[in-house]
Amino acid sequence: MSSPASNLRIDSDRLWSTLTETAAFGATAKGGLCRLALSEEDAQVRRWFVAACEAAGCTVRADELGSLYARREGTDPTLAPIAIGSHLDTQPTGGRFDGILGVLAGLELIRTLNDAGLVTRHPIEIVDWTNEEGARFAPAMLASGVFAGAFDADYARTRTDRDGVSFADALNAIGFAGPAPARGAPPAAYFELHIEQGPVLEDAGVEIGVVTGVQGVRWLDVTVSGQACHAGTTPMALRRDPLQGAARLAAVVDTIGRSEPGVSLSTVGVFEAFPGSRNTVPETVRMTVDLRHPGPGGLDRLEGALRVNAAAIASDLGLDIDIAEVWTSPPVVFDPACVGAVHQTVARLGFTHQDIISGAGHDAVYVSRVAPAAMIFTPCEGGISHNEAENMTPAQAAAGADVLLHAVLAFDALS
Amino acid sequence: MSSPASNLRIDSDRLWSTLTETAAFGATAKGGLCRLALSEEDAQVRRWFVAACEAAGCTVRADELGSLYARREGTDPTLAPIAIGSHLDTQPTGGRFDGILGVLAGLELIRTLNDAGLVTRHPIEIVDWTNEEGARFAPAMLASGVFAGAFDADYARTRTDRDGVSFADALNAIGFAGPAPARGAPPAAYFELHIEQGPVLEDAGVEIGVVTGVQGVRWLDVTVSGQACHAGTTPMALRRDPLQGAARLAAVVDTIGRSEPGVSLSTVGVFEAFPGSRNTVPETVRMTVDLRHPGPGGLDRLEGALRVNAAAIASDLGLDIDIAEVWTSPPVVFDPACVGAVHQTVARLGFTHQDIISGAGHDAVYVSRVAPAAMIFTPCEGGISHNEAENMTPAQAAAGADVLLHAVLAFDALS
Repeated sequence: MSSPASNLRIDSDRLWSTLTETAAFGATAKGGLCRLALSEEDAQVRRWFVAACEAAGCTVRADELGSLYARREGTDPTLAPIAIGSHLDTQPTGGRFDGILGVLAGLELIRTLNDAGLVTRHPIEIVDWTNEEGARFAPAMLASGVFAGAFDADYARTRTDRDGVSFADALNAIGFAGPAPARGAPPAAYFELHIEQGPVLEDAGVEIGVVTGVQGVRWLDVTVSGQACHAGTTPMALRRDPLQGAARLAAVVDTIGRSEPGVSLSTVGVFEAFPGSRNTVPETVRMTVDLRHPGPGGLDRLEGALRVNAAAIASDLGLDIDIAEVWTSPPVVFDPACVGAVHQTVARLGFTHQDIISGAGHDAVYVSRVAPAAMIFTPCEGGISHNEAENMTPAQAAAGADVLLHAVLAFDALS
Repeated sequence: MSSPASNLRIDSDRLWSTLTETAAFGATAKGGLCRLALSEEDAQVRRWFVAACEAAGCTVRADELGSLYARREGTDPTLAPIAIGSHLDTQPTGGRFDGILGVLAGLELIRTLNDAGLVTRHPIEIVDWTNEEGARFAPAMLASGVFAGAFDADYARTRTDRDGVSFADALNAIGFAGPAPARGAPPAAYFELHIEQGPVLEDAGVEIGVVTGVQGVRWLDVTVSGQACHAGTTPMALRRDPLQGAARLAAVVDTIGRSEPGVSLSTVGVFEAFPGSRNTVPETVRMTVDLRHPGPGGLDRLEGALRVNAAAIASDLGLDIDIAEVWTSPPVVFDPACVGAVHQTVARLGFTHQDIISGAGHDAVYVSRVAPAAMIFTPCEGGISHNEAENMTPAQAAAGADVLLHAVLAFDALS
């Protein structure tokens, strides 16, 4: 099957026009999208998606959490489907590509196969996962998490938004709850195309990122305590200034992030001094640390380095430093066969490429728990995402969709 | 006159009992005071003070801003008075000694002279300056500022508190506005006894601080700007993280404060990262810098060192660092004759002592612009002030009052 299809390419103009057309649903004045999960805008794009998939010959079903599965049958009815998914919901001031590219490239893939008269061995299912962003209902990746057994469906249904509206009520209001269980049968494989949401590929000047895994994340809350005193009357030598300790620790966080170049990341996002008066040495500083590492034991190594340095700083400056773990998401390594299908594809199609570890979470993180999975990244302009300025070129979108198409065909031929 | 008075001592028990008695006006549950300027509690202690001074033979007048002057005539009607002043208002959660010690030690001085049958050459005036704290009506040291010509009286009258009540309305409500102009005739000399509000004297184990001046203060607002980005997708090498620049600059602030040990002070009291999300590298950090230096050109040297380092950090990390001056109070050097009177007194009375520069502002800062002035510091427990836990011993209070008495007598004998 790979032989007759080897020159097949998706229709770049058609893909771009679907991206443009659906960007009307929840469009913002600044050229972005506000399409919160299970909102009326989400319902609008869902209705468009169902109609477009049915027009392309698919049958579409919704599961009990509203995730949509558009199925194109294959030649072998005994095979589980190859799933292609991402999400159509956005951040409140989100962009036009995050998630959306992955779903609409799946539709374009089916249209391309239709035009070529090609039928795969496996069924193909395009999935729109409900509430990937977590912007309306925390946590993120909620429906794909239920699909993979990380949460149960009732947990998802009882999440509430800022106005107290439950996931279940919001879903019923837009009428997209289906009969199928959200914890579904595992697909034969799962492929997700996504913009990188970072600057690595653009900076390296390559067209495709072959995503080999998703880094682990650990969130820490750090509290540095000293003694508040009068800034005008307390000699420097008699101070126990938590801000000085926290500033040193922030520098350590940066050093830790650079300890394994291209691998480790470490960030202080929140830093606040209390009581926060300009003529008072602070009593307390609260800061957060976000650690990222893709390898086994990596997060523990980074946290260990932080704790050793924190103890030295606390001792040196007469401070108390408390470090509390808030949340850990362990690193994910994608399936070698799926990643191999992507590798083989980018080489054959002649795209410049490099391996990359995803820095952000995606539905593929959860799906990979129950099925072979891989992801494909395209560059996005300036690496900017979760922002109305999020942007990419039609050629970048088309390259990603072509790789998605041929990775699916490669997996279909081999498995 | 110094000869018959050389063994004279104030009545320590009487001084302490007045401190204890007046601490009922605005007493808080935690043993401190809430006696905001021109409040009903302030009116209570004012009525007590007027009655006590009149009972001690003084005539008491109020000026147009409510500052009270209790006058004991001297033997030479051609001489301007020696003024002794401080304030009876407090912070909202203030202590029992800040300001109050200086006023009530003046009353004790007059009672002591009465008991000894001594009359000075100069008249003596005990002054309770209105709204020293600035806690109700900003800025601080408002009435003494008007006295010295730093502000005009209408500026003071139109200040408002958090509830929108003007100084003038609050003053009228308690009935303490007098006919005399707030910008009064300069006294022959001005002495102010005050708790140190810092730990230096206690740490050195000495009984008296001879205050030779008040350090200059400069407040700066620093804004460090970089580029916000995703903590999970942006390699360390591609970041322009303002928090790292601000942390380095905070360390520089500490170094600058230590550059002239025992002389310079430098503090970051406010430090906040924006947008303040744990998985986002911040866009901006706002921090304050409080610089203190007692010498000519000292503040400029400290600020210059800060700016040189800020420019280097900004260049090194690709950041913008803006430093804006908010306020400067230049350093004050007290009058050599007044300081000399205090020096001579502590030596003669045998108190352990050291010279000290005041870190905080006091009414004496303004009064020194129009009259020879000096201050006397006593230790306070742990250096704690602007706090309900503020404390001192009866012996510490008595030592300060004895030095005040004999410094006034020394000045009176010489001038």
